[in-house]
Amino acid sequence: MEVVEGTPLGAEELEHIDAHWRAANYLSVGQIYLMGNPLLREPLQPEDVKPRLLGHWGTTPGLNLLYTHLSRIIAQRDQDMIYVTGPGHGGPGLVANVWLEGTYSEVYPNISQDEVGMARLFKQFSFPGGVPSHVAPETPGSIHEGGELGYSLSHAYGAALDNPDLVVACVIGDGEAETGPLAASWHSNKFLDPVGDGAVLPILHLNGYKIANPTVLARISEDELSALLTGYGYKPYLVAGDDPQIVHQQLAATLDVIFDEIAEIQRLAREEGVTERPHWPMIVLRTPKGWTGPKEVDGLPVEGTWRAHQVPLSTARGDAIHLAALEEWMRSYRPDELFDADGVPTPQVVDWLPKGDLRMGANPHANGGRFPRDLELPDFRNYAVKVPVPGGSTAEPTRVLGGWLRDVMVANEEYRNFRIVGPDETESNRLGAVLEATDKVWRADIDPVDQHLGLRGRVMEILSEHTCQGWLEGYLLTGRHGLFSCYEAFTHIVDSMVNQHAKWLAVTRELSWRKPIPSLNYLLTSHVWRQDHNGFSHQDPGFVDHVMNKKPEVVRVYLPPDANTLLSVADHCLRSRDYINVVVSGKQPGPSWLDMEAAVLHCTRGLGIWDWASNDDGDPDVVLAAAGDIPTIEVLAATMLLRQYLPDLKVRVVNVVDLMRLQPTEEHPHGMPNAEFDAVFTTDRPVIFAYHGYPMLIHRLTYRRTGHPHWHVRGYKEEGTTTTPFDMLVMNDMDRYHLVIDVIDRVPGLARKAATVRQEMLDIRARHREYTRRTGEDLPEVANWVWQPIVSA
Amino acid sequence: MEVVEGTPLGAEELEHIDAHWRAANYLSVGQIYLMGNPLLREPLQPEDVKPRLLGHWGTTPGLNLLYTHLSRIIAQRDQDMIYVTGPGHGGPGLVANVWLEGTYSEVYPNISQDEVGMARLFKQFSFPGGVPSHVAPETPGSIHEGGELGYSLSHAYGAALDNPDLVVACVIGDGEAETGPLAASWHSNKFLDPVGDGAVLPILHLNGYKIANPTVLARISEDELSALLTGYGYKPYLVAGDDPQIVHQQLAATLDVIFDEIAEIQRLAREEGVTERPHWPMIVLRTPKGWTGPKEVDGLPVEGTWRAHQVPLSTARGDAIHLAALEEWMRSYRPDELFDADGVPTPQVVDWLPKGDLRMGANPHANGGRFPRDLELPDFRNYAVKVPVPGGSTAEPTRVLGGWLRDVMVANEEYRNFRIVGPDETESNRLGAVLEATDKVWRADIDPVDQHLGLRGRVMEILSEHTCQGWLEGYLLTGRHGLFSCYEAFTHIVDSMVNQHAKWLAVTRELSWRKPIPSLNYLLTSHVWRQDHNGFSHQDPGFVDHVMNKKPEVVRVYLPPDANTLLSVADHCLRSRDYINVVVSGKQPGPSWLDMEAAVLHCTRGLGIWDWASNDDGDPDVVLAAAGDIPTIEVLAATMLLRQYLPDLKVRVVNVVDLMRLQPTEEHPHGMPNAEFDAVFTTDRPVIFAYHGYPMLIHRLTYRRTGHPHWHVRGYKEEGTTTTPFDMLVMNDMDRYHLVIDVIDRVPGLARKAATVRQEMLDIRARHREYTRRTGEDLPEVANWVWQPIVSA
Repeated sequence: MEVVEGTPLGAEELEHIDAHWRAANYLSVGQIYLMGNPLLREPLQPEDVKPRLLGHWGTTPGLNLLYTHLSRIIAQRDQDMIYVTGPGHGGPGLVANVWLEGTYSEVYPNISQDEVGMARLFKQFSFPGGVPSHVAPETPGSIHEGGELGYSLSHAYGAALDNPDLVVACVIGDGEAETGPLAASWHSNKFLDPVGDGAVLPILHLNGYKIANPTVLARISEDELSALLTGYGYKPYLVAGDDPQIVHQQLAATLDVIFDEIAEIQRLAREEGVTERPHWPMIVLRTPKGWTGPKEVDGLPVEGTWRAHQVPLSTARGDAIHLAALEEWMRSYRPDELFDADGVPTPQVVDWLPKGDLRMGANPHANGGRFPRDLELPDFRNYAVKVPVPGGSTAEPTRVLGGWLRDVMVANEEYRNFRIVGPDETESNRLGAVLEATDKVWRADIDPVDQHLGLRGRVMEILSEHTCQGWLEGYLLTGRHGLFSCYEAFTHIVDSMVNQHAKWLAVTRELSWRKPIPSLNYLLTSHVWRQDHNGFSHQDPGFVDHVMNKKPEVVRVYLPPDANTLLSVADHCLRSRDYINVVVSGKQPGPSWLDMEAAVLHCTRGLGIWDWASNDDGDPDVVLAAAGDIPTIEVLAATMLLRQYLPDLKVRVVNVVDLMRLQPTEEHPHGMPNAEFDAVFTTDRPVIFAYHGYPMLIHRLTYRRTGHPHWHVRGYKEEGTTTTPFDMLVMNDMDRYHLVIDVIDRVPGLARKAATVRQEMLDIRARHREYTRRTGEDLPEVANWVWQPIVSA
Repeated sequence: MEVVEGTPLGAEELEHIDAHWRAANYLSVGQIYLMGNPLLREPLQPEDVKPRLLGHWGTTPGLNLLYTHLSRIIAQRDQDMIYVTGPGHGGPGLVANVWLEGTYSEVYPNISQDEVGMARLFKQFSFPGGVPSHVAPETPGSIHEGGELGYSLSHAYGAALDNPDLVVACVIGDGEAETGPLAASWHSNKFLDPVGDGAVLPILHLNGYKIANPTVLARISEDELSALLTGYGYKPYLVAGDDPQIVHQQLAATLDVIFDEIAEIQRLAREEGVTERPHWPMIVLRTPKGWTGPKEVDGLPVEGTWRAHQVPLSTARGDAIHLAALEEWMRSYRPDELFDADGVPTPQVVDWLPKGDLRMGANPHANGGRFPRDLELPDFRNYAVKVPVPGGSTAEPTRVLGGWLRDVMVANEEYRNFRIVGPDETESNRLGAVLEATDKVWRADIDPVDQHLGLRGRVMEILSEHTCQGWLEGYLLTGRHGLFSCYEAFTHIVDSMVNQHAKWLAVTRELSWRKPIPSLNYLLTSHVWRQDHNGFSHQDPGFVDHVMNKKPEVVRVYLPPDANTLLSVADHCLRSRDYINVVVSGKQPGPSWLDMEAAVLHCTRGLGIWDWASNDDGDPDVVLAAAGDIPTIEVLAATMLLRQYLPDLKVRVVNVVDLMRLQPTEEHPHGMPNAEFDAVFTTDRPVIFAYHGYPMLIHRLTYRRTGHPHWHVRGYKEEGTTTTPFDMLVMNDMDRYHLVIDVIDRVPGLARKAATVRQEMLDIRARHREYTRRTGEDLPEVANWVWQPIVSA
């Protein structure tokens, strides 16, 4: 690793830098410990100390050091920069810094930059009614909450995309560096364009310990670590030490070199057309955990060990020795030099800091983009599939969507604010048309045989759902738009990331100073009913269940039954903000049911009766409902069978696009009022519901409805393998023949009357099994099925 | 990277090796394409070709090459070895190899080693009623299904642990290598003990492409790749080429060197006491994707490109040119030399292969261990907390469990078949007692300040839930036992891995030749109600919801309310097989409710009435039920309030340990019969249910019960932050005062009678909020609450 020699800081600048760092450390300790006496005007008393000490000191001095030195760079160079804090538990550090630079008091005027404000700043931290212990949405300048570790670097890259003047400084804890998502995301440098994108400066902070263990990367040789980071494609610089005066000089000298190097990389690419992938600089910062904190507590070493991870003096309120040690510790920062008599930071601490939008806490990128631009969306109606009559034409829904998305790409090219991410699946998910408008960005080597790869491009594919999700989150959190196209089963890989993003959205909705950000849009295709070729491991529709536990205000789920409804839903999602939109849609050719006018109306309603498939004259014997493209086909095929075999039966067909409509209004903003719901589904007729995913979800959504005891739901019951498409339905009892059996079993009086029909359905199912096992194909009557309209008598 | 020169294969051996490889390739192609004419006795006809061509050719020749060469090593050295196939889509290759070595026909006698068997082998692949396209549970010798990528290497390490004579060869696809879990798991070499553990031989197969893109690791310079792997701590050897004769020699020479090197590393560690962490050898194999397949199809290059990923000749049944190309391709392997007139592999193909248990398909480790040993479990009753009366003592449940687990460690030390994994949380989850019996294994540098780290040890901690899960799965799948201790919220990180393991278990239960394997046991502690210090990002009880979608036969969920019930549940879990057991239990001090006798009885029943807390005389006005340690406290505190404020109200208290008991018998094997259930919960009285997690889950489990319309569930409704423990309950309306309000609102006639009580409850809640915001502490009456037994009148 490179080590930069030099002492770029003059005596005065060094003093300012150190004073700022001490001030940030002082304010950090104050937040963790104090609820009174913030300036230590009096000797510390037990009642000045919070009864519950919550927070993480260990990582904080390092975060403060970096914030201070990066602020110097910003001030010197007018550098546009944001700060991503991987060690999210360093909350007090970031709050301290944005308070010192003035941003905090602008956003929260009652936390003023004086003694009163400082007292409130201290007390509110990790206190009921106050702010969380993390770098959280409440922290100005943050786009990243670090509670669940692993995503700082992919967030940083996402933020840097299409922001050519921005540098995203990203502090990665050596604990976080052990996670899989972080380990994968180092390779993001193969997807960054030095011309159109900004730069990411990864700073691996080796403070050596996690909660109770050392970290792997701090305990391998420097040679191994250097090889690893070089192998990831970076040029690592080492800054190491425990003497603040020396480290200040070394860090300043290193940052000077690195920011020159970043500028030179960008100049070469932008002005001289260099296309070779650069080896971007990065920093390995090795400083003691809990640096400047107590060296020993109760006779055990603390500074530089895992014992500094959380709160080093854990009984400062109850124990006089701890209390005295706390006071000594805080006074070691010489607060009298740092704050004036009113508690205002002194000029030497803050006068040299960047001003206005250049402050990292106030940087517009970090707060969702100050004025996030809406996407220019071509009218999706122009992409409609012609549907002369329901079922009268065939389309591959995602391919149709691809045409529109291509033109979304084109329409927003000049604004550079739309990206599609996915794990190697844009083409296999039949969105390939977008590649007519843009490339897949690729900065590793390119061979002549490759297609659609380019040095820049707005489609990003890496076989890491975590990295895709992290990039997209970083992009959205800085105010741009995007879509994640993913195999349905493997969206579970990012379950926990979705959790964290949903929590972020839920909190930011309450923060008036944060702008709504574009929604996180998923297109789940290659879904459970069309994974017959890939088999059991690729069959899992449970991602929808997972997101349903999140706050209803942020979650939307759509199951468009055909191409035109998919277009309408997609347009809605790309216009929306602050949601997580999950869209489930097949890519295989399938019948189109609704012309565009009907599709828009249906999607606006969210669910509705399909009159053209019903023969109930307002008073059905049974309701057949479907949510999802394949269930819709089976329900319609079942109604045809019922027409043929039981022509007197009055059947109502209902289709559900917006799953949230099933819920009561008090459970979800999209919930349908009971009266309306009962009018559609009835309160006393059997409802046979064919659902795309796990049946239990439908029960969970509807159990409070009056008619629910009459509901019978079919769906995926975790039966699967490599087989034919229709066999998948038979294995899970959601095939048309079984739906007919369900009708016969549920409609009062029908069981006896229709016993032979029931037997015939069973016979066909048996015939199907025999036929597929012999030929490897589906029964011809299934493979060649087409919808026959009802002919009025 | 090292390149080994040499031509260790004599002419005859080279011929045998190549013949075996060609045979495996022939059989692989046959499986993908043919449903008749397996030996090509006649010119290929369209009807010989399957109507749906499913499978992945691209990765298969490389997998076959490695299987062949590793078999040579085994035969030469009597080396105990298993084969983990990261590219799981290479199913046909693995099936071909185990058929050639004879294992397949032993396990599936109807797939005999002759023409009839070969015909069946071909037809069954990816065919209805046949076998999946993956390396799947159905494949003898596999412990790993590769549908969802990322876990091969952690599985391999898990298998190698405590198997000192075993080498686990692990093929990692260059697509899989982009995933986060795989990227993290390279560091597993810092946790492997060359004395007590076996070896892992990672083989990174650079075949260059994913579905539609090149791979990152195939498109960085050899220097960068070498640095990366060296940085991960390995010594990489390169084998590269596209001429089979040359690659055979180079691979054989390299494997000779590597297996000598592995033996030498082990000898040094075992005989000479060397403790320095070795740089284990690994292979980078760079061969063309779809090697030996069609060079061009329809004028486009296929071999060596992404077009070889799945089925290169996609219309072989319908298109005469494709059909002819297929026949030419298959005949290029010269099947007449490989199989005799009866379709039996010729001696030169198979005579030199390893025999018996040395065959990788028959290796006992790979099939769950042939006779997996039960754990020796000390009697958990001896670890009981004394509970003179309910609530009469206090304990930290996980700390009590830790004492028992320590002795489980001791009792099984000589069998070396029990491990605990977790992301740095064994001590913070208060299981620290186990470290009296064993170390945390750590092969990176150790400093004097470190505690409980050792060169060997049965506790494994890395800050990667993925790696922990992968290690444990590999360990269980080879017949040993373990426990994963994890923060509840962050178990979601492995949601998708749990899915895949559940699918594996569901399939293997149907395979008589696979032994049941020890269960996958989770201890979720540091749970949602005690993450008030870490805040919102650490609060998510949804892992239970996630596992509930898996097959009921494999899923169990336990919520022991105190220390003794936790002991009883843990004993049950460690004895069980083929389950995923999720145990949720707090680590904070809490009241103990049941003495050991009562605890065992309660856990055996799974749920039951707590008579000592009820005053209903068999006819309650209301049922107060709880599942989880904190809900149990709130329910009991609520009954005390009811006794105080509404002494005439007859309250029944029910506690649920085994969540599955709530389900109907037809839904889950643990389901409680309706009559019994109704006797406990009544069919017509209000049930106020305080649940540990998301309330919807309880509705989902009970909506079919007669009394369900009267159920009202409280739980976590996604409200959280950094605050006090009791404030978390108030934020989510699950506090004792709100439960009393719920009772008042639900018991008919009570609303008016108890209006002042209701108001008083609201007043206390308001007082709580004011108090905590002022002091940072919970109300004294909550903080000091103790259960008061009912005194009979």
